Amino acid sequence: MTKHEELLHMLLKADGQFVSGEEISKNLLISRTAVWKHVNKLRDLGYEFEAVSRKGYRLLTKPDSIDEAGLQLALQTEVFGRKAIIMQSTPSTQGEVQQLADEGVSEGAVVLAEEQTNGRGRYGRRWYSPPGKGIWMSILLRPQQSLRNTPQLTLLTGLAVCRAIRSFTGVDAGIKWPNDVLVNGRKICGILMESALEDHELRYCIAGIGVDVNFDKQDYPEELSPIATSLQIETGKTVDRTLLAAAILTELEQLYDMYQKQGFNVIAALWEALSVSLHRDIKVSNAHGIVEGMALGIDSSGALIVQKKDGERITVFSGEISLTD
Amino acid sequence: MTKHEELLHMLLKADGQFVSGEEISKNLLISRTAVWKHVNKLRDLGYEFEAVSRKGYRLLTKPDSIDEAGLQLALQTEVFGRKAIIMQSTPSTQGEVQQLADEGVSEGAVVLAEEQTNGRGRYGRRWYSPPGKGIWMSILLRPQQSLRNTPQLTLLTGLAVCRAIRSFTGVDAGIKWPNDVLVNGRKICGILMESALEDHELRYCIAGIGVDVNFDKQDYPEELSPIATSLQIETGKTVDRTLLAAAILTELEQLYDMYQKQGFNVIAALWEALSVSLHRDIKVSNAHGIVEGMALGIDSSGALIVQKKDGERITVFSGEISLTD
Repeated sequence: MTKHEELLHMLLKADGQFVSGEEISKNLLISRTAVWKHVNKLRDLGYEFEAVSRKGYRLLTKPDSIDEAGLQLALQTEVFGRKAIIMQSTPSTQGEVQQLADEGVSEGAVVLAEEQTNGRGRYGRRWYSPPGKGIWMSILLRPQQSLRNTPQLTLLTGLAVCRAIRSFTGVDAGIKWPNDVLVNGRKICGILMESALEDHELRYCIAGIGVDVNFDKQDYPEELSPIATSLQIETGKTVDRTLLAAAILTELEQLYDMYQKQGFNVIAALWEALSVSLHRDIKVSNAHGIVEGMALGIDSSGALIVQKKDGERITVFSGEISLTD
Repeated sequence: MTKHEELLHMLLKADGQFVSGEEISKNLLISRTAVWKHVNKLRDLGYEFEAVSRKGYRLLTKPDSIDEAGLQLALQTEVFGRKAIIMQSTPSTQGEVQQLADEGVSEGAVVLAEEQTNGRGRYGRRWYSPPGKGIWMSILLRPQQSLRNTPQLTLLTGLAVCRAIRSFTGVDAGIKWPNDVLVNGRKICGILMESALEDHELRYCIAGIGVDVNFDKQDYPEELSPIATSLQIETGKTVDRTLLAAAILTELEQLYDMYQKQGFNVIAALWEALSVSLHRDIKVSNAHGIVEGMALGIDSSGALIVQKKDGERITVFSGEISLTD
């Protein structure tokens, strides 16, 4: 941690109470003048303070933007998010991470943007990513595993986001196969899992995560309004995007570590517990066509097992489902 | 075809003989002044002419570089190479096509470079791509097929290059699984097949092809000298890179069309006929380890069938083999 991150840590812990300059000076092993310098550094980053002589400093407001220092402080990870690039605007965070990946950057690197001007969704769709309203984030993964298991990573990522949203906001979020996160039947998060292959081997995966955080109802364009929702709409409160991003990355690293060490079984069980699409009548569309039937569960590779109306059981590796019951 | 391409076509057909200005003017439906203008356009592109009054024009020499007009004339394809970008220098033609692919450019687009400053080989290796010596080319494919079949495309690309080299130069080239092209046991061409996935579906593939064309023995760095060879070394002659690139793209489109319409069987048979690594003792290295045994053949997905010394038969989807017998 840098000195200004340590300072921020102290002030956050004080929870709006004053912390004296002397205490800070002792804790951080810096002079009183240096304390004042670091307070100003945090001011530049968008934090606001009250400074009262003999009382010290107290934190009034945190920046509205996603901030690097706050993210690093809130992360409980070894590698995920420890290299984080936060941009005001980019065409697509997926494209940014793709470039980093080809340059050899290591696993866990993250790009976050306040705004994406050409955000990508699944099936070549656009992902609406207006400034300041969401978490638009891409994470580089370099899993040591066979290509056959990529559907497992798709499920794992959705599970991590769903769990982080639930624990951080208390909202009752569920997962629609493979990895849409829904609240009350409306989509609150979409995930785009893109991978690069050499011959038939995985080189890397990029998990793109888009969470609608601080959208008002009026913020949605007409076509999204009936099918999308945000954490602000669901909780009635503004949600701190920096802390939520840190919670997602922390959850993701924990599940990913567990997955690498213990395999997919535990992930599958956790995923099934939050699924809203199992044991229901569904319609799956993908590049190979449309299948109707009942979603029975997921198999050991992460594929969806569907029982068709004629009784035949098939496995579906990717696609989009709609609930028909 | 543009007018200067038509003109070039006439002069190439004349095979070094004079073609009168009047004949050109009639054929191309342009004025004598316009003929002169198009001759100068070709001069700018590196062609050299003799112009003699009352006799007309004859082609003396073609440019030493890979040229767009010559490529378009020599191609016998519908789509492959019809969009071709020819660069003096680029870090990597794979990277260039990746960018085009993400922008939505359609199948068959090609980037060729005189030089790659950071040419990529398999397994993160460098590919030595000095200016003017080879064909450094990447082609965008958007196959409508399951991910499981990507090894088939790897084989198909190697087959196309091997067949084009054989028919264009007469050199006795063979294929080492999956797609190295060898002449007299030395590598003359390497192929890098990279693919992009969304979830578990193929978005596109980029076939990177590097052919050592006009290397002298002295052109090779010490470490490549014992294992690499070029068409110039093997034939004793300079080989026209533009025409060879066109021959490769033509062969590739023909095989790819056949594959899309009739499936992999015919490709597999053609591939096996040119293989130098079947029915021999081999060692395969890939991300999962090292296996020794005899290469028996390829299966319906394009994977290599290996019989281990203990009699067990396994299939290998990707890797690198060395001949041990």
